[in-house]
Amino acid sequence: MSFIGVLGGMGPAATVDFMAKLVALTPARRDQDHLPVVVVTLPRIPDRSAAILGRGQDPLPALKEGIAMLNRADVGLVAIPCSTSHHWYDELSAASRAPILHIARAAVSRAPRGERALILATRGALASGFFQRELAACEIPFDIPSPDDDQVAVDDCIRLIKAGQPSAAGACLNRVLVNARARDVRTVILGCTELPLAVAHAERHKLRLIDCTLELARYAVEYALQRGWNCV
Amino acid sequence: MSFIGVLGGMGPAATVDFMAKLVALTPARRDQDHLPVVVVTLPRIPDRSAAILGRGQDPLPALKEGIAMLNRADVGLVAIPCSTSHHWYDELSAASRAPILHIARAAVSRAPRGERALILATRGALASGFFQRELAACEIPFDIPSPDDDQVAVDDCIRLIKAGQPSAAGACLNRVLVNARARDVRTVILGCTELPLAVAHAERHKLRLIDCTLELARYAVEYALQRGWNCV
Repeated sequence: MSFIGVLGGMGPAATVDFMAKLVALTPARRDQDHLPVVVVTLPRIPDRSAAILGRGQDPLPALKEGIAMLNRADVGLVAIPCSTSHHWYDELSAASRAPILHIARAAVSRAPRGERALILATRGALASGFFQRELAACEIPFDIPSPDDDQVAVDDCIRLIKAGQPSAAGACLNRVLVNARARDVRTVILGCTELPLAVAHAERHKLRLIDCTLELARYAVEYALQRGWNCV
Repeated sequence: MSFIGVLGGMGPAATVDFMAKLVALTPARRDQDHLPVVVVTLPRIPDRSAAILGRGQDPLPALKEGIAMLNRADVGLVAIPCSTSHHWYDELSAASRAPILHIARAAVSRAPRGERALILATRGALASGFFQRELAACEIPFDIPSPDDDQVAVDDCIRLIKAGQPSAAGACLNRVLVNARARDVRTVILGCTELPLAVAHAERHKLRLIDCTLELARYAVEYALQRGWNCV
């Protein structure tokens, strides 16, 4: 038996959402059916998006310290419910004894083939390009929001969730989804772990919304159940 | 700076609720304003209530292992969002370098003096008597549910939350609250961390409901903020 390790705090509400999804996805009738988890919430990790855009402190040392803490606790798997930090995925994987799930791979695995997908993520994640690379590898066409218009609403949505204002965040997300629908988009990848926290305060507009937090949790639970980490 | 340590998994949904309350209680506009937390979710810890009632395996070794994991991660404080495990509070405190908050002390500190309080908790916690002792120390009169009637509904409520059925759990809690109101109770201590998860699915009947998870989180956040654990 082993633990699911979670490198959290980016942001803290998204980490709680990820943990809630781990619990909800685990078939259980009593405490003892659940999966063991170690979570390290390190909110002080410098802003990932700003760093990628060359406007902030390098978060890699703090990310690596979190990975080291999880490995010292003997976790058998690491999940990071923060998309943007996957810019450093290779460096973090090289520094971890436990395998690290890739949030973009998990999310893209749920996108229908041959249907154009809109990627909503931080400017840093979009500049890094790991979502685009995963989609291209699966031959899924994609769009990203216009930087001066819809991306501003995405940025606001993320910032408002981090500031504890989900209802205002939902209004920003809604604006983006209305525009997506008008451009005949069918699939939207919520590619930042703050965005699913705004969905309850927005309309769905008949769009297929792919929740990267949920998909990461699905992979983590599946990995752990296959290895019997829930067995007494 | 240090970490809030959380010994969780009893049950897993209550741990998530506690973490959500930590986040909500922390004044923050961005990730970096939040508090660092280490959570060890050990759902396999044997049933605490059954053990106190002499009908199950001793959970103390597993509880101590969780405390040891948190101390190895260098936490500066421990919170255990499971009331019943506070039966072993003295043994756990003796085994921990970091101080451990007491959930019943946190909850009782919010009960109005001189007003009779109804304690809702597991049969094990009630048999242990730590809520009764805290209330008596504050000279607050108290009741406990009748074992063959309301306590059955409390047991069902806790079991249904652990089984992922909050709406059915809410109906059980509602029955207990209706009876409490009819007996002119004004304050109800939700003294098991599963019970607050049922509140959204019950009526409040103008009762003052004291949420032990929320009060434990309040103490933890206050302790950490006073020590500047949120400062970069």
